[in-house]
Amino acid sequence: MLVGIGDDAAVVRARELSVTSVDAMVEGVHFRLQQGFSTPAEVGHRALAGALSDLAAMGAQPGEAYLVLGLPAGFAERGALELVRAAASLARETGTVIAGGDVVSAPALTVSVTAVGWAADEGELVSRSGARVGDLVGVTGQLGAAAAALAVMEGRVEQGEEQSLEEGARRPPFGGRALERARRPVPRLREGRMLAAAGVHAMIDLSDGLASDAAHLAEAGDVQIVLDLGALPLAPGVEEVAEGLGVAAWQLAAGGGEDYELCFCVKASARERVEDALAAPGMAPVSWIGEVREGPPGLVLCDEQGRPVRLEGYEHRW
Amino acid sequence: MLVGIGDDAAVVRARELSVTSVDAMVEGVHFRLQQGFSTPAEVGHRALAGALSDLAAMGAQPGEAYLVLGLPAGFAERGALELVRAAASLARETGTVIAGGDVVSAPALTVSVTAVGWAADEGELVSRSGARVGDLVGVTGQLGAAAAALAVMEGRVEQGEEQSLEEGARRPPFGGRALERARRPVPRLREGRMLAAAGVHAMIDLSDGLASDAAHLAEAGDVQIVLDLGALPLAPGVEEVAEGLGVAAWQLAAGGGEDYELCFCVKASARERVEDALAAPGMAPVSWIGEVREGPPGLVLCDEQGRPVRLEGYEHRW
Repeated sequence: MLVGIGDDAAVVRARELSVTSVDAMVEGVHFRLQQGFSTPAEVGHRALAGALSDLAAMGAQPGEAYLVLGLPAGFAERGALELVRAAASLARETGTVIAGGDVVSAPALTVSVTAVGWAADEGELVSRSGARVGDLVGVTGQLGAAAAALAVMEGRVEQGEEQSLEEGARRPPFGGRALERARRPVPRLREGRMLAAAGVHAMIDLSDGLASDAAHLAEAGDVQIVLDLGALPLAPGVEEVAEGLGVAAWQLAAGGGEDYELCFCVKASARERVEDALAAPGMAPVSWIGEVREGPPGLVLCDEQGRPVRLEGYEHRW
Repeated sequence: MLVGIGDDAAVVRARELSVTSVDAMVEGVHFRLQQGFSTPAEVGHRALAGALSDLAAMGAQPGEAYLVLGLPAGFAERGALELVRAAASLARETGTVIAGGDVVSAPALTVSVTAVGWAADEGELVSRSGARVGDLVGVTGQLGAAAAALAVMEGRVEQGEEQSLEEGARRPPFGGRALERARRPVPRLREGRMLAAAGVHAMIDLSDGLASDAAHLAEAGDVQIVLDLGALPLAPGVEEVAEGLGVAAWQLAAGGGEDYELCFCVKASARERVEDALAAPGMAPVSWIGEVREGPPGLVLCDEQGRPVRLEGYEHRW
């Protein structure tokens, strides 16, 4: 950064291509602070994570982020600092520089993030539209944690509280690493760049939910994508929560949003190259969950027996 | 633009340096839609103008803009379209591409704009901090229109309505081009680049008001800036409104915000070069309003007799 916070604008030395994503979160719409649903720190983290996740889906190198905070009257300075510190911490972890921002009064806590990434040439980047018949469809990491965490936090899971307290081991409350990822999703930036380098030619991040986002890939590529719901990688605890809700686990994994994993299409011949690319320690593993077929464009979800199923509408926000 | 709206992020071919500014406007804080104070189109225009004005103050070439709209429940689609169209129209006029955005629900109409400009090298750009003893202080265009318009719209101007109706010519209602500039400020992008090329070495745009913004120049340069309030270029109608308010015209011109003119410091020897640079048709002219002197750092305002005066607090928002 050549000129930073305090001047009229931030000045940054550019690379050949700039990749820019904007993302906004509003209290009462995208998160709730009441009843401990979200802390200001989680809001700051997730707002930046959401914008960086878009850069990950392009295969871009993260560069700078610009934060606009809308603070309601009476919002504690401490909360605002926690929010900014959490964003700054994720920025450091991901190699992003918070290069500017704005703070305004607003009727509800609002966080707008502009994330800028960079690439040396178009060949480094992956759009949504490159899916081809014969491709395999892969996904990083695990799915359903955010939807399961939401169900638990909202008290929608039918499990006797006494029972879970007395026999904690039988039905463990949803928690641990999956809950941590749901509360503080880490954008798959390294994975996105490795996948792009391994030849992936269509990619999207899972913000709305696998079913919605894979449908975007099908639409952008004008192809039919068939997903095998039995192959979805479930985050720990998702099966138990689904059981408590009386739904199939894939309904949380395919219908729930904010997992911030990457879904991508790649030639079947590149399968091993992709697996090798994500084999390094600390990287999210890949699961193969479907393929691109001849047929009318769109998304087809199939159960373990290969029968097409419909996904019921599923609330995907916190 | 290589990849545009509809993918995860926008991809743009970069120049050497990127210059980025973010700006947010919130209903009830930065503008009011009630009683016709502002139309959605004016809000869209002014939000983009504010962000581009920051690029103008850096001497950057405008590039792309990213719009985040927060729409309250029941906000008419027509209003949202008017807002976006007005921003798109200003984008076209200024050579800016609206390359992406986001639309979310929000409790009040909110517009966040990220404006990105470009430069070939640091020598093209001007920061706030370059003021030197002996510099002249200049300003583009005319001042006070926004503050005067606000006073008129709020009904704060003491002028008998009967009188102004009967003797319209004597005290003309504030209007015409000055009101148009107040409602739809045009960022001084061309002027900013010409001033930078003419050797201006400290520059800021007047968003908070000349007194506040010139104080930023003094602070950033660690110098004393002395402004001659009698030399301020007044927008048409500002004197009449000031008279109606019972204040000096310079109070509106120095204390009122949102004029979006450029204030700059330049060596006295470059005076003619600067005047020539802004002599082209359609450019805002330059007025010389002060100088940078030896003395304790800060801003000193002097009246026509050269006596230091204090500026009373003056409401600078619409």
